[in-house]
Amino acid sequence: MSLFRKVAIIGTGLIGGSIGLALKKHRLAAEVVGVSRHKESISLARKTGAIDNGGTSLEIIRGADLVIFATPVNVIIDLAPKVAKIIERNCIVTDVASTKEEIVRLLEKIFPDFVGGHPLAGSEKRSISYASAGIFQGSVCLLTPAKKTKQDSLRKIRTLWENIGAKVILLSAPEHDKVLAMVSHLPHIAAFSLINSVPKGYLKFAAGGLKDTTRIAASDAEIWAQIFMSNRKNVLKSIEALERNISVIKSAIKQNKKQLSVILNAAKNKRESVV
Amino acid sequence: MSLFRKVAIIGTGLIGGSIGLALKKHRLAAEVVGVSRHKESISLARKTGAIDNGGTSLEIIRGADLVIFATPVNVIIDLAPKVAKIIERNCIVTDVASTKEEIVRLLEKIFPDFVGGHPLAGSEKRSISYASAGIFQGSVCLLTPAKKTKQDSLRKIRTLWENIGAKVILLSAPEHDKVLAMVSHLPHIAAFSLINSVPKGYLKFAAGGLKDTTRIAASDAEIWAQIFMSNRKNVLKSIEALERNISVIKSAIKQNKKQLSVILNAAKNKRESVV
Repeated sequence: MSLFRKVAIIGTGLIGGSIGLALKKHRLAAEVVGVSRHKESISLARKTGAIDNGGTSLEIIRGADLVIFATPVNVIIDLAPKVAKIIERNCIVTDVASTKEEIVRLLEKIFPDFVGGHPLAGSEKRSISYASAGIFQGSVCLLTPAKKTKQDSLRKIRTLWENIGAKVILLSAPEHDKVLAMVSHLPHIAAFSLINSVPKGYLKFAAGGLKDTTRIAASDAEIWAQIFMSNRKNVLKSIEALERNISVIKSAIKQNKKQLSVILNAAKNKRESVV
Repeated sequence: MSLFRKVAIIGTGLIGGSIGLALKKHRLAAEVVGVSRHKESISLARKTGAIDNGGTSLEIIRGADLVIFATPVNVIIDLAPKVAKIIERNCIVTDVASTKEEIVRLLEKIFPDFVGGHPLAGSEKRSISYASAGIFQGSVCLLTPAKKTKQDSLRKIRTLWENIGAKVILLSAPEHDKVLAMVSHLPHIAAFSLINSVPKGYLKFAAGGLKDTTRIAASDAEIWAQIFMSNRKNVLKSIEALERNISVIKSAIKQNKKQLSVILNAAKNKRESVV
């Protein structure tokens, strides 16, 4: 018997599509259905086997024992009350959004059994055409249970992620947002700011360094604007930390080469400790 | 007949070693010799075929018709007068250092026929053990001729780089340093500052975004401190540009989501124009 009977994925993009492919591959759901505003996304998801059935209307999710929101934060907030009217009370609800405090606060009021989720996978790409069952292999998935989350439901969501290759770590929603502001949102701010600083005419001289540091600046602008706004308080704090660290290097360049080497060496050692 | 009779590479690290391998592979030099402070580096360079002969003393460069400095800036400045005493007047001298204004100003006084060079290849790695003949394939090599550089010598250096796969672009040394401050030195500043901003306990949550944006923070601290000091004026200007662009995003997060999307979208389009 599979872990879930009918899983409904709302949003069949890179992450939603990859979850569908992984659920099918590891036989974790008897049936997977998908919902998207975009007909082409549904038809591609069906063609690649990410979903068994799909449509642009929420009606198809009826009878699901698991609903996974895989849309941007604002779409989740918009759709949640509509989804609540269709699913049954014992249906588990989870999501994959990049921020958690706002989502968990709103969704735990709407759904009796909600578990926040955030797989640290994906890339600057968005579309289902980049989806793959393997993107969670070796990744980390953060789960942020709500106050009312049933232990058994948390266990099932954990089992799902572990079965498709992710290491699960539990965090409170506020902790999650504090950590992500630093390890994900700040790198995006840095990448966007960096590419905006380089004069257009100089871009032809870009080598590996500039390319790597700004790769994620090609991410979807609308989605990232939402993430920054949804985690505004922590993001502003992380920006201030970056500003301080830039300023420390700037002062050292102005004044003292020895101090500069010490600062850069601390950075090097820290970077090398990242696996 | 090969392009050069005897090429002397001073500094057999990642770039020096790779040049040796490429020269041999494309038969551009009848003989390649190497000099390094490190005996192991010389013996590894000989074993991999990057050089025919080598040693820790400069004596071995005698009779070269091309000397390539592939050491950090301060070592070039230190060794140049010693090299000048050994080589003959008609020997062409070039280098691969990351900054050019200071180097060209000093070395054009010491050598009658000097061409500044800077291959935009390499990585955060340094050692000869990462060297490969292929690292220049499809890369850009910037050449900064000095006032006295002979046209024929410039042509020969250009031919060398083109033969090992690089596209050559000529720039004045001041232009070079202005461009590199933006496309290379600033990304390093951003990467060092970014990793220094992330609390150590959060590093286990690092995914692709943080890893890519800070990969070059694992670069050698001493070398980068020298590069920043050697190009101090331009680097400080580029840092100020970054600070302004971070501040623009910060204000938008504080005030106006719509403006934020516009800024991020401009960044996305710019990044996507980088090939």
